[in-house]
Amino acid sequence: MPELRKDPITEGWVIIATERAKRPHDFTQTPAESDSVVCPFCPGNENQTPPELWAARPRGGPNQPGWKVRVIPNKFPALRIEGEMNREAEGIYDRMNGIGAHEIIIDTPDHNQALEEQSVADIALVLTAFRERMLDLQRDERFRYILAFKNVGREAGASLRHSHWQLIATPVTPRRVKAKLTGAQDYYQRKERSVFQDILRHEQRDGRRLVFENPGFLVFCPFASRFPFELCVLPKRQAADFHGIEPDERLQLAEALKITLGKLSQGLKMPQYNLILQTAPSRAGHRRSGYWDTIDQDFRWHIEILPRLTHTAGFEWGTGFYINPMPPENSAAYLREVAL
Amino acid sequence: MPELRKDPITEGWVIIATERAKRPHDFTQTPAESDSVVCPFCPGNENQTPPELWAARPRGGPNQPGWKVRVIPNKFPALRIEGEMNREAEGIYDRMNGIGAHEIIIDTPDHNQALEEQSVADIALVLTAFRERMLDLQRDERFRYILAFKNVGREAGASLRHSHWQLIATPVTPRRVKAKLTGAQDYYQRKERSVFQDILRHEQRDGRRLVFENPGFLVFCPFASRFPFELCVLPKRQAADFHGIEPDERLQLAEALKITLGKLSQGLKMPQYNLILQTAPSRAGHRRSGYWDTIDQDFRWHIEILPRLTHTAGFEWGTGFYINPMPPENSAAYLREVAL
Repeated sequence: MPELRKDPITEGWVIIATERAKRPHDFTQTPAESDSVVCPFCPGNENQTPPELWAARPRGGPNQPGWKVRVIPNKFPALRIEGEMNREAEGIYDRMNGIGAHEIIIDTPDHNQALEEQSVADIALVLTAFRERMLDLQRDERFRYILAFKNVGREAGASLRHSHWQLIATPVTPRRVKAKLTGAQDYYQRKERSVFQDILRHEQRDGRRLVFENPGFLVFCPFASRFPFELCVLPKRQAADFHGIEPDERLQLAEALKITLGKLSQGLKMPQYNLILQTAPSRAGHRRSGYWDTIDQDFRWHIEILPRLTHTAGFEWGTGFYINPMPPENSAAYLREVAL
Repeated sequence: MPELRKDPITEGWVIIATERAKRPHDFTQTPAESDSVVCPFCPGNENQTPPELWAARPRGGPNQPGWKVRVIPNKFPALRIEGEMNREAEGIYDRMNGIGAHEIIIDTPDHNQALEEQSVADIALVLTAFRERMLDLQRDERFRYILAFKNVGREAGASLRHSHWQLIATPVTPRRVKAKLTGAQDYYQRKERSVFQDILRHEQRDGRRLVFENPGFLVFCPFASRFPFELCVLPKRQAADFHGIEPDERLQLAEALKITLGKLSQGLKMPQYNLILQTAPSRAGHRRSGYWDTIDQDFRWHIEILPRLTHTAGFEWGTGFYINPMPPENSAAYLREVAL
C-alpha cells in the first residue's frame, strides 16, 4: 500500500510509492524510454491495461479498438483508490495511507502522434475526457485535489513514448496549490481586484511576453518565469474550476495548445516538457475549509507548460528560488516568430 | 545586470541571470559536460579565472599553483556583488536588481578527484574555506542568506567536471529556508523541544533509516525522503550557524561526508547528486526580523544530499509533493551494507 509521509520541519508531503517500488540496483542503470514491441497504449492491446473508465469511441465496444481517447486506471498507481482514510503517528512523525486515484488518459490511438500534431477537434475531445473524469472524481469526499498533467520525454518523467496524460487525485491539498490560493486571496483582499485579471490586462497591454491570443485564451511567458520558454495559458473568462469549461472554450483551448506546443516543437526541436493544469481544489473535500467563500473571485484555473531545457541544481533545491538564463521577453519574442 | 523578479501569485523569487544569458538556439542541443583541454580550475591555469578571494596553499603565491583549496568569484555570476539594492515596481510586478555574491570553491587541485576520494584532512580544509567565506560575506548587510552547495554531474547542473562547490549570497531569504525556520519555530512553541533533537533521538533509537554515525554527526535517510537515497547529515551539537563549527567537528563532518558519499558512489556506481548546506540566515541582514529571538534553540544547521536518480515530473511541479519509489528504510539498509 502506498503511504503519505509528512516532513516534520517543512510539513511537505511525500508519497512513498510502494506499488512502484524499485530495488537499489534498478537505479544504477538509466532506464531507456520504453518503446517495447508491444505498446500497452496502442489499439489492439487493450487487454494489457486495466479495464477502461471512459472512452470517446466512434466505433467498437469497451476495451476494444475504435477509440479516439481512452481513460484507464494506472497499472502501477502512485496512490490507490481502495480503502478508508487512515492518519496515524509514527513516533514524532505523521503518516497516512496512500488513498487516491491515478488514471491515464491515452489521447491518441496513433503511437507516434504528438499532441501538437492532433487536430483541434481531437484535442478538444481530450479536454472533454478531463472534464468528465474530474466531475466523477470530485464526488469522492476523500479527495482534496485532482491534478491533470502530461510528461513528454524521458527527462520530463515519461516512461512510455505513446502520448498520454495523467490524473492524480490526492487526499491532501498540494502546497503549491495552497500557495496560489492564498496568494490570490491576499491579492484580492489588498486590491479588490483579481491577480489573474491584472496579469491578463498587463500582458495584453505590455505585449513583450505574449506568444498567442484567441477570443478565449492568452498564452504568455510569465514575468517571473522559472525556466527558459516557460508558458502560461490563461482563460479570459473568470472561472476557478476547469470542469466548468464550455464546448466553444474547449475548442479555443485546443487551438491555443496546438499552436503553442507546435511553436515549441518547431522552434526548439521537440523539447521535453511538463504540462500542468492548475484548477481549484475539489469542493466535496473542502466543505469545512475557508477557501470557498471567495475562491470564485480570487482564483482562476490555468495551464503551465514547463520545457525541460535546464537542470534543477543545488541552488534551486536549497532555496526554492530559480535561476533562469533566458529572460521571458526573449523567449516570447522567439516563439512569436516561429511560423507553423 | 541580473534581475530578481517576484511571482505575483506565489511570491516566489526568480533570478533572471543576464550574465549567463543564452540564445534560443543554445537550448536546441544538449551541452556536453565541458571537459575542455584547458580546465580553468586546474593548477597552472589560475590566470583563466578572476583573482582568488581565499586559498589554502602550503606553497606558491596568490593566483599561482601550490594551493589545496582555492576560492574565486564566479566568472558568470548569477548575482553581482557591485551596486546598491534597488527595489521597484513594473506595473503590477515587483523586481529588484540582482545584487549578491557568487563564488566557486575549487576543493582539489586534482582534475579527476571526487570529494569522497579526498582525505579527511583535505575535506576539513574545504569546510574551513566555507567558514571563512561565510564569516566574510555575513558582514555585508545587503545579504540575507548564504547558500553553499555542490552539483556533481551534468544532470545535477554541473557544467565543469573538475570538483567544485559554490557559494551564493542572496538579497532575500529563500522560501525553503523560511519554511524550515518557521516550521522549526512552530514545533518548539508547541512542544518546547527542538524538532532537530527529536529527529536525532528518534532516528538513533529506531535505527532503520541510519546510515552512519560518529561522535559529532548522524547520517540518515529522512522519514519523508523526497528522493531515493536522499540523505541528511545532522550535527549532534545544537548550533543554528554552520560558521560556528569547531576544528574537531570539521574533521568529524569530513569523515561523515567521505564515508557517506563513498557508500553512494560504490553502491550506486557514482550517481549524480546535489549537496546542500542549510545554515541559518545571515544575522547582519535580519536585524529587524523576528527570527532571531528563538533561532538558536529552534533551528540547527544540516546538510542535504540529493542523488539525482529520478526525474522531477508534472506531478511534482504541479503539487510541490514528491513521489518516491524507494522507501528510505530500504535505501538506508542498502547503504549500511556497502563496504568501503
